Amino acid sequence: MIERIAILGTGLLGTSVGMALRTAGYRGAINGWNRSAEHAQLAQRMGAIDSFAPDALEVARSSQVVLLAVPIYATLDFMEKLAPILGSEHLVTDVGSTKRMISETGARLFNTPERAAFLPGHPMAGKERGGAELGDANLFRGAVWLFTDDPNAKRSPHSAALVKGWREWVAAMGSKTIDLDPARHDELVAWVSHLPQFTATALSALLEGEVGAAPELRDVGGRALREMTRLGASPFSMWRDIAYTNTEAVERALLALEQRLAYIRENLRTPVLREEFEQANKFRKE
Amino acid sequence: MIERIAILGTGLLGTSVGMALRTAGYRGAINGWNRSAEHAQLAQRMGAIDSFAPDALEVARSSQVVLLAVPIYATLDFMEKLAPILGSEHLVTDVGSTKRMISETGARLFNTPERAAFLPGHPMAGKERGGAELGDANLFRGAVWLFTDDPNAKRSPHSAALVKGWREWVAAMGSKTIDLDPARHDELVAWVSHLPQFTATALSALLEGEVGAAPELRDVGGRALREMTRLGASPFSMWRDIAYTNTEAVERALLALEQRLAYIRENLRTPVLREEFEQANKFRKE
Repeated sequence: MIERIAILGTGLLGTSVGMALRTAGYRGAINGWNRSAEHAQLAQRMGAIDSFAPDALEVARSSQVVLLAVPIYATLDFMEKLAPILGSEHLVTDVGSTKRMISETGARLFNTPERAAFLPGHPMAGKERGGAELGDANLFRGAVWLFTDDPNAKRSPHSAALVKGWREWVAAMGSKTIDLDPARHDELVAWVSHLPQFTATALSALLEGEVGAAPELRDVGGRALREMTRLGASPFSMWRDIAYTNTEAVERALLALEQRLAYIRENLRTPVLREEFEQANKFRKE
Repeated sequence: MIERIAILGTGLLGTSVGMALRTAGYRGAINGWNRSAEHAQLAQRMGAIDSFAPDALEVARSSQVVLLAVPIYATLDFMEKLAPILGSEHLVTDVGSTKRMISETGARLFNTPERAAFLPGHPMAGKERGGAELGDANLFRGAVWLFTDDPNAKRSPHSAALVKGWREWVAAMGSKTIDLDPARHDELVAWVSHLPQFTATALSALLEGEVGAAPELRDVGGRALREMTRLGASPFSMWRDIAYTNTEAVERALLALEQRLAYIRENLRTPVLREEFEQANKFRKE
């Protein structure tokens, strides 16, 4: 039933969704748009999109499902522009990493019987670097794809069917879907995604000052250090919007980690250290 | 020239050294000892040692090279017991994760023309879990093996030749060797090894309290979270001795990370966040 999909933004996620849809057997049209035409061309060569055009709104209007795969503020901007020009024959969905602001905007601008449906989505998949060239048809296999749908949505039967259809394609791409309240989503990802990222950023930035000038000493750290700093390569361009749209929850998580590190620091020679290791061991038990 | 090696302690490192020596072409004897005979038996079945005996000192005395592969305080204890019973025809070396205390003890008890040589060593390789069953002939391939040798050592020609021979076997196992001053070693590993470990422990312990009760939410974090908490599985038994013998350097590193996290927390919406990401990106540039 879904036969025309638009992917607005052909970075790592947009490109990977296009490739994953094809691998999952989707045979309809996929039209793309990207701020830089060069990257759209690359996504096309990789088989993620059939074609691309310079006018994102035109690409969206001629599709049934519009996937917004751009940073969070660009997503919010597109939502404002798309709401007036799309109708009940459309579904707009996204892949943004925070969902409170996007879900509120979706409830305000979409999800009436006359308007397009909006389904807020967040695939928990990515790489430490972005870009179409890293596009990966298997990126979503085994990953969790979160939805924070609007419980008060009043959709036309047609757009409701598109929502159902999109959820089926997400499952076909190999993801497990979980539905969450948007505020709960942002609180949760602050702990399991944003805190690990900012921790890796802090650790990498600190170590750059301590041993960055001596690469042979950096090698000393081995696999453990490489893993703990891999996310240090993450681009600011993506994380700025996350920091802005989930500030309070990230602040809480960071403060809690600072306190936990201080607690360990003050107890390096007391029995508390054993308790901390045992608590950590529990988290890693299969 | 080295034809009889003793491995005291057949945990992950001791077992892996035995297996790596065989893979590198060592054809002499390897005799083992372990506190638990059951694990020594396992190491024997894995080809790491030819035989094992209940008396560690006897095993040591009948060998040329004695590798201490036990926790740090047990290493110090063995050094006290071995110094009086070994002579200039022996080399004792170790794999302990901190080197200041071990190197001082080595200089005090060994390295005269009449006594055995002592070469403090530290292979930067391991896994988040220990035990002979994880023994791996390739564990040291591509890793760095640190030495903090005593510049005032006055060794017999025989024991000096054993030192040279052991360094060659370490290279043959695939490791790159780096020589450091013991105090500099402990300062360095506080940053590139101990800080990443205690950070992973703090993060894992914290998250166990936040989302541990809901394993499906833990899965949400995906690969990034798994990597950032893998070391959370590390055993306290090993890290206790490290915390005790490198306390000040670890305290400094932990405090610096706490301050860096606070700096990021206070600047989630300021241009400072971009600078922190750029500094972190630099550390990860190849």
